[in-house]
Amino acid sequence: MNLLHGGNIYDEEITEQYGKDREKLLDFSANINPLGMPRRVQEAVIHALQDAVHYPDPLCRRLKRALAEAYGLPEEVFLCGNGGADLIYRLAYALRPKRALLTAPAFAEYEEALRQVGTECVFHELRDSLEVRQEILEQMDASTDVMFLCNPNNPTGLLTDPDLLVRILDKAERLGILLVLDECFLDFTGQEERSLISYINETEYLFILKSFTKMYAMPGIRLGYGISKNRVLLERMEAAGQCWGVSVLASAAGIAALGEREYRQKAVELVKRERAYLKEKLQAAGMQVWDGQADYLFFRAPGIRDLYERLLPYGILIRRCRNYRGLDETYYRIAVKDHEANVRFAEALKYVV
Amino acid sequence: MNLLHGGNIYDEEITEQYGKDREKLLDFSANINPLGMPRRVQEAVIHALQDAVHYPDPLCRRLKRALAEAYGLPEEVFLCGNGGADLIYRLAYALRPKRALLTAPAFAEYEEALRQVGTECVFHELRDSLEVRQEILEQMDASTDVMFLCNPNNPTGLLTDPDLLVRILDKAERLGILLVLDECFLDFTGQEERSLISYINETEYLFILKSFTKMYAMPGIRLGYGISKNRVLLERMEAAGQCWGVSVLASAAGIAALGEREYRQKAVELVKRERAYLKEKLQAAGMQVWDGQADYLFFRAPGIRDLYERLLPYGILIRRCRNYRGLDETYYRIAVKDHEANVRFAEALKYVV
Repeated sequence: MNLLHGGNIYDEEITEQYGKDREKLLDFSANINPLGMPRRVQEAVIHALQDAVHYPDPLCRRLKRALAEAYGLPEEVFLCGNGGADLIYRLAYALRPKRALLTAPAFAEYEEALRQVGTECVFHELRDSLEVRQEILEQMDASTDVMFLCNPNNPTGLLTDPDLLVRILDKAERLGILLVLDECFLDFTGQEERSLISYINETEYLFILKSFTKMYAMPGIRLGYGISKNRVLLERMEAAGQCWGVSVLASAAGIAALGEREYRQKAVELVKRERAYLKEKLQAAGMQVWDGQADYLFFRAPGIRDLYERLLPYGILIRRCRNYRGLDETYYRIAVKDHEANVRFAEALKYVV
Repeated sequence: MNLLHGGNIYDEEITEQYGKDREKLLDFSANINPLGMPRRVQEAVIHALQDAVHYPDPLCRRLKRALAEAYGLPEEVFLCGNGGADLIYRLAYALRPKRALLTAPAFAEYEEALRQVGTECVFHELRDSLEVRQEILEQMDASTDVMFLCNPNNPTGLLTDPDLLVRILDKAERLGILLVLDECFLDFTGQEERSLISYINETEYLFILKSFTKMYAMPGIRLGYGISKNRVLLERMEAAGQCWGVSVLASAAGIAALGEREYRQKAVELVKRERAYLKEKLQAAGMQVWDGQADYLFFRAPGIRDLYERLLPYGILIRRCRNYRGLDETYYRIAVKDHEANVRFAEALKYVV
């Protein structure tokens, strides 16, 4: 279990300092929609309590129907899970790949899940720019079973060139590599046309991972989904764990969330504006900031290995990125929050550097 | 995925007939506390919605503290999961046992989870009485890695003799077999002294499985836990899946549920009374009824292979047991519900046989 993820508000050192008074703590370590959970999602959960005396539908039929409608795709291409992370583990258990290609850095959960089934993980080092570039094509070969890409990437927030993505998918298909494309943060970029979802109907070698967590500020409810035309894969993933993985409450929350078009639009605009504000303040404080397009910003604090510790007394929790492959203690990630919180962050930052 | 479990209220044939008007349907297929979900559990979920904008605590510290207090055991012996079924799969993945001993019949999920890791399942046939008897000891040998027992058993509701259970545990320990003891239904028997929980501190070879699902009528919220002194096992089980498996809402529900002493007492009394009523009515209708002690009753309808279909037009859904190993289409299980529902069942039964 990796306890170095974001959202470490439960850590002893944190709870000791802030006790139950969590309100005082500004958690920049977990990037969650600053608008908070939509009212209608909350109401849907409360309403669903009466149905929670029944087991969940193992097939998540109502939720899949809502997803199918939202995407204009058939229901069969969807698989729902107890958060995106549940699907990553199910995928590892379902495939038991011999060899996987991952970027470094990338979300640590891919590697952790693959380690459970003894997969040999080959890393494509993203070098200084941390962009996914065409050199990655050279590392895709016939011995690769599966490949994980995150777009925009985590922790950098960088988008991969759309033409390159299509070339990667083409090569994956030609070599029989399953491309697992994590688009969990794509909603926040306002550039949904960057999704490979339009290729879903065309290939068995694409699995797109999505989560309700970030956009709808509901990480504590646990709901994610995968999209793929590969029925054999989806069926194996279903069998790789219990059949009641998605709670009745999560299903109801997801259905309500899909209807929140205006909220999504508002969130994208807010994040865009505040991301620009934070970027400027980070740069003004001497940080090297990447051109992140998600609801977080990734930066390097040259020579500062203790920015986390320096900000903590100000009630600000940031994400250390030292546990990502290829990164050291001078790399950090912060969530884009509401303006008031971002101002507090900017002021504290100015003070501590 | 096994879609023959109880709680099949989502099946097409059912929903087609009853549509959204589920209220009309009496679901005897899933055994859930007839008192319904405690008010305070519902309130706890609603209150926890504000915390669900954060990721769950990967270590479930608050819930473990509540469990530790409730049982008078150290926190380290508990492992929480997304329902009991989540823990069964994690156990299979963590142990990857070569050989397992199971009873036939038993809860199908044990075998399904073990099949995912290629375990050879050896079955101890419970014969006509369907009781676990001392013959099971003979099937425990050095080649057995793990053994699953359910007490009271599912689907029979039969309790195993306490002395025999201790002998089984002794032999398991001697031979290095992990005894997975599913006590999910023990709360309903009113005979909690039958639990092997008092042996937890004494051996590394015992894993007790418990669920919040049945007693607190919250199968749709998903919360279960395991108890074992075997730290290596628990740590492997944690690593065998995502670290955020237990939702913020489920944790809050569990903590509230543990405080519901009076509700538990009331439920045990109600179930005892209604079980006796149903047993009498089943016997009067010519059924062969086992001496179940849980919140369900198991019976055989001699020569009647379509009792499920006969009862459906009356809005009554029962559990066919044909998918249990060793049982055929004449075996059924019904939940013990509230008196009004049980009366309706008894009347319909009289009519259809």
